[in-house]
Amino acid sequence: MSNPNHRTVAALVFPEFELLDLYGPLEIYAMLPERFEIHIVTEHAGTVAGRGGPRIVVDDTFSDGRPYDLLLVPGGPGTRREVDNPVLSGWLREAAARAELVTSVCTGAALLARAGLLDGRKATTNKMAWDWATAQGPEVDWQARARWVEDGDIFTAAGVSAGIDMTLAVIARLTDQKTAEDVARMAEYDWHRDPGWDPFAEMAGLAPQAPSRT
Amino acid sequence: MSNPNHRTVAALVFPEFELLDLYGPLEIYAMLPERFEIHIVTEHAGTVAGRGGPRIVVDDTFSDGRPYDLLLVPGGPGTRREVDNPVLSGWLREAAARAELVTSVCTGAALLARAGLLDGRKATTNKMAWDWATAQGPEVDWQARARWVEDGDIFTAAGVSAGIDMTLAVIARLTDQKTAEDVARMAEYDWHRDPGWDPFAEMAGLAPQAPSRT
Repeated sequence: MSNPNHRTVAALVFPEFELLDLYGPLEIYAMLPERFEIHIVTEHAGTVAGRGGPRIVVDDTFSDGRPYDLLLVPGGPGTRREVDNPVLSGWLREAAARAELVTSVCTGAALLARAGLLDGRKATTNKMAWDWATAQGPEVDWQARARWVEDGDIFTAAGVSAGIDMTLAVIARLTDQKTAEDVARMAEYDWHRDPGWDPFAEMAGLAPQAPSRT
Repeated sequence: MSNPNHRTVAALVFPEFELLDLYGPLEIYAMLPERFEIHIVTEHAGTVAGRGGPRIVVDDTFSDGRPYDLLLVPGGPGTRREVDNPVLSGWLREAAARAELVTSVCTGAALLARAGLLDGRKATTNKMAWDWATAQGPEVDWQARARWVEDGDIFTAAGVSAGIDMTLAVIARLTDQKTAEDVARMAEYDWHRDPGWDPFAEMAGLAPQAPSRT
């Protein structure tokens, strides 16, 4: 059982993770330092380069076997390789079983799907990588029009910046709406509070606005 | 003169920089890897911890004396200390003199102001730290209602997430509008294209919507 006043966040990284997928949510948690403690977690100790080159220092490795209250799984070009990494999939399953909430951003949902964590669940992912990402989870109830999806203890966000909106919703669930509103204002972020807000679904040719007449 | 097809971006870091101030803009540059090359720059080699703890690896130090085409100066709690760092101010002046564009996010503008780079210029900063930040530059023409301000070769953004909007405007200026729109879509980011959009000025009690009757 999590301590409701102090939770640990495991932020998964791997080569070529998408920068904003990770740091958008981490900005939100970092604004509440008394409530959330961030750990950067990956397979091997050392540093990991995100998309575009910036390198992050690893805090914990999978083999440390630590439990965490929240998991944050980013997407990015590196997911195309990591979906086939059984060590990463195995860690996701073990860590998810011990976590209060599991969250993903963008194609991070493909990693959750391949680990079997989304089977039978509603979930979403990046609209610009829809076909590839959804093919990683044939048993997932994929939602094409969604900024993010909350299904029980799993939150999945759409592409990149959607992780910020989702994380504010996580904050609202774990604390209260006012705290989430305060954080959004401190970040001067135009929070999309409606998880159904998703103009990018249309842009990608998914989920047309008007119902079809078939 | 910059190579218009390949520019270097110096992303300044210091202890307790604000994560999203840095990584929001870097996400945008990282989406155009053939055009922008990111360097993480600070005073001393090694690693630097941002707000909330995540550590970044330094690529270049001030003493390397490298020129860069673009400068990115984030804000964050650490700016309260760094405004009094003459080594950082000196590097900012030298690097700015050789750069094509200088950009700041949030209280990063206080660092530019204390380096004298904003004197006589229009600029903006975080609305939630307005009094402190603007006091760092009495000769600056501070704009209270602004998502970002473009004054010649200097772009300054409001708080935290405003850096993403500003950087998309930088992309539009350096390349073309379509490229900026494409990047915003890839990031599934609701780009505020109007630099005058700023609900946070009102929330902070600055720049009331209706003109006063004095």
